[in-house]
Amino acid sequence: MKKHNFYAGPSILPEFTIKNTAEAVTNFAGTGLSVMEVSHRSKEFVAVMDEAQALFKELLNIPEGYEVLFLGGGASTQFCMVPFNLMKKKAAYLNTGSWAAKAQKEGKHFGEVVEVASSKDANYNYIPKDYKVPADADYFHITTNNTIYGTEIKEDLEVGVPLVADMSSDIFSRPIDVSKYALIYGGAQKNLAPAGVTFVIVKKDLLGKVDRDIPTMLDYRTHIDKGSMFNTPPVLPVYAALQTLIWLKEQGGVEGMHKKNIEKAGLLYDEIDRNKLFKGTVASKEDRSLMNVCFVMNEEYAELEKEFFEFASERGMIGIKGHRSVGGFRASTYNALPLESVKALVETMQEFEKKH
Amino acid sequence: MKKHNFYAGPSILPEFTIKNTAEAVTNFAGTGLSVMEVSHRSKEFVAVMDEAQALFKELLNIPEGYEVLFLGGGASTQFCMVPFNLMKKKAAYLNTGSWAAKAQKEGKHFGEVVEVASSKDANYNYIPKDYKVPADADYFHITTNNTIYGTEIKEDLEVGVPLVADMSSDIFSRPIDVSKYALIYGGAQKNLAPAGVTFVIVKKDLLGKVDRDIPTMLDYRTHIDKGSMFNTPPVLPVYAALQTLIWLKEQGGVEGMHKKNIEKAGLLYDEIDRNKLFKGTVASKEDRSLMNVCFVMNEEYAELEKEFFEFASERGMIGIKGHRSVGGFRASTYNALPLESVKALVETMQEFEKKH
Repeated sequence: MKKHNFYAGPSILPEFTIKNTAEAVTNFAGTGLSVMEVSHRSKEFVAVMDEAQALFKELLNIPEGYEVLFLGGGASTQFCMVPFNLMKKKAAYLNTGSWAAKAQKEGKHFGEVVEVASSKDANYNYIPKDYKVPADADYFHITTNNTIYGTEIKEDLEVGVPLVADMSSDIFSRPIDVSKYALIYGGAQKNLAPAGVTFVIVKKDLLGKVDRDIPTMLDYRTHIDKGSMFNTPPVLPVYAALQTLIWLKEQGGVEGMHKKNIEKAGLLYDEIDRNKLFKGTVASKEDRSLMNVCFVMNEEYAELEKEFFEFASERGMIGIKGHRSVGGFRASTYNALPLESVKALVETMQEFEKKH
Repeated sequence: MKKHNFYAGPSILPEFTIKNTAEAVTNFAGTGLSVMEVSHRSKEFVAVMDEAQALFKELLNIPEGYEVLFLGGGASTQFCMVPFNLMKKKAAYLNTGSWAAKAQKEGKHFGEVVEVASSKDANYNYIPKDYKVPADADYFHITTNNTIYGTEIKEDLEVGVPLVADMSSDIFSRPIDVSKYALIYGGAQKNLAPAGVTFVIVKKDLLGKVDRDIPTMLDYRTHIDKGSMFNTPPVLPVYAALQTLIWLKEQGGVEGMHKKNIEKAGLLYDEIDRNKLFKGTVASKEDRSLMNVCFVMNEEYAELEKEFFEFASERGMIGIKGHRSVGGFRASTYNALPLESVKALVETMQEFEKKH
């Protein structure tokens, strides 16, 4: 039976990435060795790192003055690296979910944190819009896509202070204007690569302005100076990331992806809105994520939740259980998810409706 | 032509690990999905993590009271995590190479660092023995194997203060008495897994004793509490690590490995000592590493260095160029390197000798 991979992350990767990585695990770049056992200083891997950085910049149209890094440690390590490097005295955070809150919590180790707005009291079911960012904040931190709650900030904000964005779960899903950001980071394990590599896009002239003593590995300048090779980078995840970037370019880049993502998420949201059994969890349609489609049973059908989960699982739907803090279902529709998987889920929802 | 992989790291992995990982990249644990695209919360991956931790403990005979963690960020991140978590006021370091020096440098961000001894003035060609560790040091940090210089501390030291060891390049190469250590860490990319996962063995009751404010991701307790699942772990590298651990057990565990490593390194050192063209770089035989065999041309044959490199490369020897700070050659003889590769290199050295 065809499996439909709706995992929230780590999540579906392009077949192109999987096929090429499987080959490289056996024989990397014609070396006769596995990509898992070649030196990161070998000319073959240096070429991979260089091409991945170049293609990353090309696909996001990253302007001069920014650097792209591939690091270890996950987005969660960025939660402290950002204030380590950028917070002089005060930073502003937008609290749109539990990962946003975790990032904000780390800020407090380094100085004053201003929570400009929060949707926590409504279980994060919307993106706050009516807030003011203090003009003296060293940066404003946002989480563009909130995987657990299915909300997304879909435009590039203008806030008058350096903008820092965790884009772990929507990078490469739509065009962004990188010049509007001071720093963008994310775990790669949604739209880019297997878990184990973290991307950072950083505007170089913002660094070196804090008095704080920064441990070497937590200082972005260390990694910029060494081209992400200060220590051994996660070789295989970087190789896989390169494959996804090549695939992405072939698919029409971020513009092409954006169109497909609008179509996929739209199809699923339309069915949720139409089908009497289900309802979406996000308060307003404009805040709905294109990456994580969260829905629950309508009140009068609440007792069918478990049955629908089993019904869908039998039809090859994987990873559709909602996060425990929201409940119900979550279908993640990342870049690599084919339209046919969304169609299969929609048909499953329709079949289930007919049954009831 | 058969390739012989002497890379210093990332380095050769068992064929068993490569074969099983290649399969899992295509179809992981019968899920029909790639190991690169399954949730770290899936029951299949949770089983991998649990088994890897259990087998890690079993193979090193780790006593009660210790935890095994699989983290991101590399050993270089441990250079600051160790003092973050363990240094109250003062720590002692043994400077046996450039990585040891990097670890020591990070300590200075957190308090007083005492360098108890250093072999830097002899280009790190020996392991200092005659030193005294201050009784009031919060810990004593050593780098057991110095990849660049080919020296190794091959016994478990007793120093009267908590012992912290970077075992990136010799973990699982010989039996160790973990009870002698407070903390052992290392990048996995030599004897365990592809780059991207870092192991930590930590004695739990030593934690929580510093007043310092520790960022969440840099606090070992975070990862102990969540079983290395606070954030998304590097899934594929952990899967590959498990394969190596299974293989290691089948090979007779660390005792079995130790015997083979003694045989392999012994064969190569004997040839270096016998062959008139070459000489070892380590000052005394007792300090010679079982993992990285460093040698140069004898003075009177110095001009043959490039020719030998090409001669060996043509015979399938990969990664034998010495680090630029030592020059000459380095043949890394990690666990997964078969005896036949050592024999092939020895034969190459003998053939080259006959030519000259």
